[in-house]
Amino acid sequence: MANRPYNFSAGPAVLPEEVLRQAADEMFDWHGSGMSVMEMSHRGREFISICEQAEADLRELLAVPESFKILFMQGGGLGQNAIVPMNLSRGGAVDVVVTGSWSQKSADEARRYANVALAAATPTGAHLSIPDPAMWALRPEASYVHICSNETIDGVEFQELPDLAALGSSAPLVVDASSNILSRSVDWSRVGLLFAGAQKNIGPAGLTIVIVREDLIGHALPVTPTTFDYRRVADNGSMFNTPPTYGIYVAGLVFQWIKRQGGVAEMERRALEKSNLLYQFIDTSDFYVNRVDPAVRSRMNIPFFLPDPDLDNAFLAGAKAKGLVQLRGHKSVGGMRASLYNAMPTKGVRALVAYMREFAVAHG
Amino acid sequence: MANRPYNFSAGPAVLPEEVLRQAADEMFDWHGSGMSVMEMSHRGREFISICEQAEADLRELLAVPESFKILFMQGGGLGQNAIVPMNLSRGGAVDVVVTGSWSQKSADEARRYANVALAAATPTGAHLSIPDPAMWALRPEASYVHICSNETIDGVEFQELPDLAALGSSAPLVVDASSNILSRSVDWSRVGLLFAGAQKNIGPAGLTIVIVREDLIGHALPVTPTTFDYRRVADNGSMFNTPPTYGIYVAGLVFQWIKRQGGVAEMERRALEKSNLLYQFIDTSDFYVNRVDPAVRSRMNIPFFLPDPDLDNAFLAGAKAKGLVQLRGHKSVGGMRASLYNAMPTKGVRALVAYMREFAVAHG
Repeated sequence: MANRPYNFSAGPAVLPEEVLRQAADEMFDWHGSGMSVMEMSHRGREFISICEQAEADLRELLAVPESFKILFMQGGGLGQNAIVPMNLSRGGAVDVVVTGSWSQKSADEARRYANVALAAATPTGAHLSIPDPAMWALRPEASYVHICSNETIDGVEFQELPDLAALGSSAPLVVDASSNILSRSVDWSRVGLLFAGAQKNIGPAGLTIVIVREDLIGHALPVTPTTFDYRRVADNGSMFNTPPTYGIYVAGLVFQWIKRQGGVAEMERRALEKSNLLYQFIDTSDFYVNRVDPAVRSRMNIPFFLPDPDLDNAFLAGAKAKGLVQLRGHKSVGGMRASLYNAMPTKGVRALVAYMREFAVAHG
Repeated sequence: MANRPYNFSAGPAVLPEEVLRQAADEMFDWHGSGMSVMEMSHRGREFISICEQAEADLRELLAVPESFKILFMQGGGLGQNAIVPMNLSRGGAVDVVVTGSWSQKSADEARRYANVALAAATPTGAHLSIPDPAMWALRPEASYVHICSNETIDGVEFQELPDLAALGSSAPLVVDASSNILSRSVDWSRVGLLFAGAQKNIGPAGLTIVIVREDLIGHALPVTPTTFDYRRVADNGSMFNTPPTYGIYVAGLVFQWIKRQGGVAEMERRALEKSNLLYQFIDTSDFYVNRVDPAVRSRMNIPFFLPDPDLDNAFLAGAKAKGLVQLRGHKSVGGMRASLYNAMPTKGVRALVAYMREFAVAHG
């Protein structure tokens, strides 16, 4: 543990130490079964209990109503960019709000299955704000409206989900919550479907979580692969095909860890604490800059820039020497990015701020 | 280890003890990185080295020619049942040889994207043989011919891949090798594409391996989700979207384990030894029966039946007491099934045979 660095990766990302320890301890023999979870038939009693517990814990943590199904799938957020319109669009109209690279990708992919229009969009290369929902161009015939609740690359986060009904729309809201799921509560009365690749705020890459209102299931286009038809997945308890069993197990350990910490409310308190620490330091610094509208800054992914990109490599090398790793910004944006997911301890952020202060003094 | 049972699950299935031990040891700190493999960015130096090594080892083990791409994907074999025709059929003709439940599923799913005909088929409920390739009805316009090289449920295995060219067909052969990959060598001159869900003979569920001849890539139907377009996956080194990183890591450990054992030739020798042990016992017994044509019996999955299904539960309970688990046959077939994948030691099969002999004496 002595050498464990603070890992600011945007995903796959840091996991709680307790979860890794438990996974290592149980690798050879899960609960006296004599088997690793990886070796269990997905239809066996042992794995079914793991899967059901994970689902129940996630439902409890996010207060998911009974009218929503929780599905464990594969293919990641990019996969859902196709799977959602295949299941929900009925080939009709889809409205997308583009606030960053991820929602732009969602719009591009949905065009292959539906008539896509941008209800609102910030400009490529300058996704720094969220257009006022009151100004969105919502089409009455839209089968759904897509948003990305937290843009991992651009660092832009919805501070509350839009209330489409209050905006006069009856379309269900689809939320790509890949990078902020479980860091804040969800107002399910505003949501039709929420999906998240697990590899950011939950853990293991290769698991995708879909939480979908039951009445939206059952309208897949004929070209939808059977394994990605929500109806089939839901009717078979996510076991229509072999699910990513070990990923579900690790996700379940993470859910239990969150419960022990105090649930999503405590994750939200910590996210505020951690992100405020870093934003306040950046804003009071005349060396570092974050350009995102303070009203919609992400608590999870914080891009920041040094005054001169020529300093970037020195900054990264010095950070690594202090045990602060995976801070390089996404190549499309440049600069630095600190991802402060649930498993990042506050002391990691304090260590980052201390290093940033030191570096600024040395190079300012 | 004392209590480790012999696990005959058809998948997810037993892993080599050495692999589990290494995974547990490295869970907290992979090679001094201070990170678990699960915590690494897929674009980081560390994970890229893991992924490249896994690919190189698989290429070496199966002697995959340079003209084939190895892709690490998600969605399992059932996913490929849609993804293959989306990528290869061009909406045209697809010939399928049905020799069991899995190839039947492949035919059913491909119908949604292509004009499917059965080149040959054994009857549902009695998949006990493989029709002579010389008698297959191969259409000259077929974009490919699909076979399942080993039927996990029915216990029917191709002992050599058909030579379509010698049968007068220029169509590429598509092989679903989910349950016998790495248990025998592959004659790549006869193959266009081979795919395998990893959860049977490799390990972690959620990883799907696709080995495809390069000239077959690049013809995806417009409805193909971008994440499942072989062109995109190949051009991005399986990193178009976040791959199932931990699954690739464990698969890589399995590949290294196979190399240490002596490669695929040694796996094949053991598979013959193990399956012969069990088949010879069954055939000399007047209690147990396996109905599959001896010429095409699977070395991997051996279904067998007791004289009276009312004895099944007693057999399973007694087996479990001896540390022999997951022997119940697939519900569509009934009876018992012993899966003897690469990680099943010969002594596990000897223990099974000893128990079967004892049970037959007690109940015969």
